[in-house]
Amino acid sequence: MTRKVTLLGATGSVGKSALDLIERSPDRFAVEAVTAATNVEALAAIARRTKAKLAVIADETRFHELEELLAGSGCLAAAGSGALVEAAAGDADLVIAAIVGCAGLEAVMAAVEAGRTVALANKEALVTAGALMTEAARRNGATLLPVDSEHNAIFQCVAGNRIEDVARLILTASGGPFRIASIEAIAAATPAQAVAHPNWSMGAKISVDSATCMNKGLELIEAHYLFGLPAERIDILIHPQSVVHSMVEYVDGSVLAQLGTPDMRIPIAYALAWPERMPTPAPKLDLAQVARLDFEKPDMDRFPALRLAREALEAGGAAPIVLNAANEVAVGRFLGGSIRFPDIAATVQDVLETTPVAPPRSIGDVLDIDRLARERTEVSMKAICD
Amino acid sequence: MTRKVTLLGATGSVGKSALDLIERSPDRFAVEAVTAATNVEALAAIARRTKAKLAVIADETRFHELEELLAGSGCLAAAGSGALVEAAAGDADLVIAAIVGCAGLEAVMAAVEAGRTVALANKEALVTAGALMTEAARRNGATLLPVDSEHNAIFQCVAGNRIEDVARLILTASGGPFRIASIEAIAAATPAQAVAHPNWSMGAKISVDSATCMNKGLELIEAHYLFGLPAERIDILIHPQSVVHSMVEYVDGSVLAQLGTPDMRIPIAYALAWPERMPTPAPKLDLAQVARLDFEKPDMDRFPALRLAREALEAGGAAPIVLNAANEVAVGRFLGGSIRFPDIAATVQDVLETTPVAPPRSIGDVLDIDRLARERTEVSMKAICD
Repeated sequence: MTRKVTLLGATGSVGKSALDLIERSPDRFAVEAVTAATNVEALAAIARRTKAKLAVIADETRFHELEELLAGSGCLAAAGSGALVEAAAGDADLVIAAIVGCAGLEAVMAAVEAGRTVALANKEALVTAGALMTEAARRNGATLLPVDSEHNAIFQCVAGNRIEDVARLILTASGGPFRIASIEAIAAATPAQAVAHPNWSMGAKISVDSATCMNKGLELIEAHYLFGLPAERIDILIHPQSVVHSMVEYVDGSVLAQLGTPDMRIPIAYALAWPERMPTPAPKLDLAQVARLDFEKPDMDRFPALRLAREALEAGGAAPIVLNAANEVAVGRFLGGSIRFPDIAATVQDVLETTPVAPPRSIGDVLDIDRLARERTEVSMKAICD
Repeated sequence: MTRKVTLLGATGSVGKSALDLIERSPDRFAVEAVTAATNVEALAAIARRTKAKLAVIADETRFHELEELLAGSGCLAAAGSGALVEAAAGDADLVIAAIVGCAGLEAVMAAVEAGRTVALANKEALVTAGALMTEAARRNGATLLPVDSEHNAIFQCVAGNRIEDVARLILTASGGPFRIASIEAIAAATPAQAVAHPNWSMGAKISVDSATCMNKGLELIEAHYLFGLPAERIDILIHPQSVVHSMVEYVDGSVLAQLGTPDMRIPIAYALAWPERMPTPAPKLDLAQVARLDFEKPDMDRFPALRLAREALEAGGAAPIVLNAANEVAVGRFLGGSIRFPDIAATVQDVLETTPVAPPRSIGDVLDIDRLARERTEVSMKAICD
């Protein structure tokens, strides 16, 4: 049976990988709607190629351009955040939420409230609005399929089991470029050193998050909301080869792990075909060639972001929103050369300690807290820079 | 809800581990029947302790002894192979088939034909009667739960998935005590060297099977019948630490693996609680402490048993019965000091080549072929020894 797919964020990295898979299996999928932030040419080309029924550009000023590019294609053009929300809530068997950042929150929530099956590639949805999203999913019968390789691994390891039989989730972490660096070397790290991720090719911001290990801290928060386990039952394990994408320990002592080559098309294909599976062109894992897998405990002293994320999760309420916002602003400043590497965590800690806010009750609240935290971060960094 | 359990082979190693788990969870289980080959004292003690309804001793000459030992306990005593078959087919939610060797075949078949859920710890059931057993299971709606750590691992990795989405099964093998030994050193191996297994403590016969890698060959045959995949889609991978118990590769490139400490109570508990899970006292896996996992391709030249088993599986019919019987006799002779280590595989190959037999149509046929192959093996070894 053909699955109707809506792709929010069609021109980004996850969107492109999803399209690659969808276009390889034309009998399996029909594209309902595609959206993009500003890249109107790429969006129109995708809409034509996939015979989508609707294309939405978030930037309203590009509406006429989109309309012109789609003329005669049979694909409807729309623009703006309202159209984005309508596309997300529209008819589809699967909504792929691949918009980057808080800009995607309202659309993801609309899909969840419409009771859709949502392939979740937008990290902010669970980090900043985890309680709201999972509560809305429960209330509306929506299914959240994580696309992030770690959470997708855990989802695969939990399939066919009862969540109450899970003893512990084990998130694996590459350890980033500074895994074996001294605390002094880390203190002196340059942006160029920080963005050199050993296993996955990623953007600059997420590469710095990997260097600070904040990415793993954010994933800890996501895992908590996705699987409902308390922070103390979610461990982080350093695994430099990034072959084991994460694990689940059960009450009987069994540990299930998902492994694979570092190719995002594998978790995306899992979400696309779930609860079945579909072939992918991803290279197959050859463990005899990999030959060796290493594991070690993470070092909380050299990577304070891990501790901060755990504290933010335990504090609950708005703390994860503040953590995420402060980190994003600080990483931007580090990449711009105006603060040092250890200042990222110091800034996040400072903003967390000085920004007491009540738990968000809506996506509107989340966006407000996010804005407030960003302002506070600028103030906090000013103090550091002085 | 209490599960009624019948334990065939209660006094052996798997039987003892199963009893350990059952007696730790008295609310979960009620013991229906227990059986043993000859150890009447141990059987009576188990029957009294677990308040079993029926105890069966296979050795008919011990019947009166058993009856006396159970006097006043409320547990019925019975003896002989007919009583064993009746116990296997009797009322139970789970039959644990832990009788060692071909002596257990008729009882396992009786449980399968009664449509029971059968926790299968008897290797011979699938190696020698795989087609008959799985066909009977299908016909009678029986479920086969593998207890062997490798097949239990695969079963866990397949749960929640469709078997048609499996690309490949990957059986892990420790490589045994001769993993890095030269072909010359292997040729000169003594029984004492061959029984020194690096990770699991096991009996002498199965330790030699680990040294020749025939155990993995037999497991390849079992995996074929249990999961229905052709031999060419079942790989063997050497993994000296024996932490990953086996893996499943899916069509999308995902690999699921089951890991754990080498404690048989983990797979036994999985079968006992299936499709749920239950706590076990098995030590928890600490991957940071294990620190390193290695993987390498098996060497078919130094371990010809792997090739022989694959050939026997591909030949089908009675070949796996012959392989198993010839190997068992040859290993016995090697342990007795009358043949050399490489003669084990040479003997098996010779008997396989010279024993053309039709596929078995019943457990009776299996036992006849087994007997014939054992006779042929004696003749074959006589030629080697001369």
